[in-house]
Amino acid sequence: MTQIDPNRLLSTLETLRHFGREGTGVHRPALTPEDLEARQWLRTRLADIGYHASIDRFGTVLGRAPGDAPTILIGSHTDTVPHGGWLDGALGVCYGLEIATARTEALGVDAARVDVVSFQDEEGTFVPFLGSRGFIGEITEPASLADKQALDGRRLGDALAVEAIREQPILQIDVARTIAFLEAHIEQGPRLENKRLPIGLVTAIVGIRRFRIVVEGRADHAGTTPLELRRDAGAAALRLAVALLDLFQAAGGSETVWNIGYIAFQPGALNVVPAKAAFTLEFRDVQESRLDSLEAELRALVGEHSRVSALPITINQTAQVPATLMTTSIVDAFEGAAHDLSVGSMRLSSGAGHDAMMLARRVATGMLFVPSIAGRSHDVSENTHAADIITGAQVMARTVDRLLGTL
Amino acid sequence: MTQIDPNRLLSTLETLRHFGREGTGVHRPALTPEDLEARQWLRTRLADIGYHASIDRFGTVLGRAPGDAPTILIGSHTDTVPHGGWLDGALGVCYGLEIATARTEALGVDAARVDVVSFQDEEGTFVPFLGSRGFIGEITEPASLADKQALDGRRLGDALAVEAIREQPILQIDVARTIAFLEAHIEQGPRLENKRLPIGLVTAIVGIRRFRIVVEGRADHAGTTPLELRRDAGAAALRLAVALLDLFQAAGGSETVWNIGYIAFQPGALNVVPAKAAFTLEFRDVQESRLDSLEAELRALVGEHSRVSALPITINQTAQVPATLMTTSIVDAFEGAAHDLSVGSMRLSSGAGHDAMMLARRVATGMLFVPSIAGRSHDVSENTHAADIITGAQVMARTVDRLLGTL
Repeated sequence: MTQIDPNRLLSTLETLRHFGREGTGVHRPALTPEDLEARQWLRTRLADIGYHASIDRFGTVLGRAPGDAPTILIGSHTDTVPHGGWLDGALGVCYGLEIATARTEALGVDAARVDVVSFQDEEGTFVPFLGSRGFIGEITEPASLADKQALDGRRLGDALAVEAIREQPILQIDVARTIAFLEAHIEQGPRLENKRLPIGLVTAIVGIRRFRIVVEGRADHAGTTPLELRRDAGAAALRLAVALLDLFQAAGGSETVWNIGYIAFQPGALNVVPAKAAFTLEFRDVQESRLDSLEAELRALVGEHSRVSALPITINQTAQVPATLMTTSIVDAFEGAAHDLSVGSMRLSSGAGHDAMMLARRVATGMLFVPSIAGRSHDVSENTHAADIITGAQVMARTVDRLLGTL
Repeated sequence: MTQIDPNRLLSTLETLRHFGREGTGVHRPALTPEDLEARQWLRTRLADIGYHASIDRFGTVLGRAPGDAPTILIGSHTDTVPHGGWLDGALGVCYGLEIATARTEALGVDAARVDVVSFQDEEGTFVPFLGSRGFIGEITEPASLADKQALDGRRLGDALAVEAIREQPILQIDVARTIAFLEAHIEQGPRLENKRLPIGLVTAIVGIRRFRIVVEGRADHAGTTPLELRRDAGAAALRLAVALLDLFQAAGGSETVWNIGYIAFQPGALNVVPAKAAFTLEFRDVQESRLDSLEAELRALVGEHSRVSALPITINQTAQVPATLMTTSIVDAFEGAAHDLSVGSMRLSSGAGHDAMMLARRVATGMLFVPSIAGRSHDVSENTHAADIITGAQVMARTVDRLLGTL
């Protein structure tokens, strides 16, 4: 039975936090010097326990246990959003490193049967999921992405041209070797904390659909133009937006979430009837069929409001991410492990995307969440109680034992 | 009976249009060289017919017929909004000049009994109604306004320091002399055109109330935060805004108009629950009692939405302009004059402010509207058919005859 070392795990997390540390947070966006230093550190740590450790042309780090026995791949990412937190991604990578180390110590490296990975640019500084998409073979020609630019002005082609990673082959998953991919992550929401449960068993990662809706009217003097002669894009957009909120309230499922995060009128003067109004809508659910039916109702409602207001309303889809189911046997293994250790858990969906979405296209995949204090993430206030960090690692180690039959 | 000269009137308007002409429009904001040149031109034209013509420290131009007999004051303003139209203000001033000229030719200047005025900065380049507020004695100390700044960066104190007007005494109304103030203006709306009527008899100028409403919530990840745990300032603002539109629809009178011209969310990202939402609301009506009751209902609704959403909602009044009734006997005189000339007319309110609002605080005051083509104003497309321009001047001249008993 794999026994993790709580102090070593916390110490490893603190060491990783050092790269790009900013007060309580971390600034370590993909391919910055801090990101690459952290990745070199990880590779060294993996080599130190006798692993075959490599870094690819994107900066993805993979540590393979020696030998050809089937393994469990554990990991996440070590890049962060700008001025982000210290656990998002780092937690899942350090769990992998700790479990690999513990098993190497207990069983010898040849029997460790755990591989460890840190994918590049999960956060999308240049290209969301760049590393895991490369790892599953969906990005084979990085040259086509060379002109992708970060918000800080860096160009991906230039960022990849550094000595440490230049020209390295892209690391790819060995499907025959890999029994499963396990990713631990902070929840980034408040559900576990609210239920006072230390473990979340992710059943699915939501699909996302995003739209931009634009109403076109006519600017008029708001004092001298009678209401019945106006073509008020603003009022029509407000009424449509509220009708959409009502639609999602009525037709959304228990796990559907939606958001209107942006709205603006043109010209935007208090005494001018809006000539144009635009707002965004996104919604997420774990069931593609529900996303489909909500989208159909959304489009019907837009058409109806366009007819009633007699104003042109256009709807443009700006993003579509399919929902991803986690592998049932892995969810069950996580749940069994938590039960073995008398740790409370709940099944839940992930409202954010993770590298596990990509890995699930190739191998059995599961995700485990630990609580986020106050649900905060992508911010320097991001944190998790040490006890929860340790419990999560113990449940994941136990899951590895269950999956490999090494209890 | 005063017979205006249609060709001379149109020619005068074209001459005035020359100052600051920009294609079909005019750029002649208050106290620009173009504005001051136009005002000097007007003073000369008034002096040419034997009037006592003067310009004051603001640039307001007044032409007084010689003698002490009671007179009718006719005029408006010759300043424009930036890149505006050629008739807004100019029409009312040129009517005054034409009627004074026609009466001087017909009766001799001593019996003309019409004074002519062009007020400064009606459009509020520096201070809305600067000239007419000075004329009624509400601005006596211009030094206090010296730091008011135009959008083009000019400071009022500097703009007033030019040789042509510096140190001149502020022209003020002679209440004992002035029987009435008559202002003709383009409608700036589509009602007359839609009814195919050449004359609008203004019964009142609307009062205006303006508010800025701010909802405060909390930013959250729109994927990972369950709906019931959000403090969504955006959704609350949308629902409040639509409830306000419904309130005004239900409780507004036949002449109430309202507008939500601006709305914005913070941080304004499509995948972040809005932390803050702000929007503007203005409404106008000719009855102060209705404005009062609408404001009370508005404030009650804001309170109710704050309770239901459990979010702080603040409401700040940003402007309040009282409603102004036109003098009944003057409205009747306009109507009688139109009837005398077999010209169709309708009573209506003005949804925009005019110098007549200020003059009505001191003397009997009336306004006459002529149609705006397609209701456009404050734009280079602003225009009125020549036949309507002429008809308006004839009705105003006839009104002068009625009021002075010179039929």
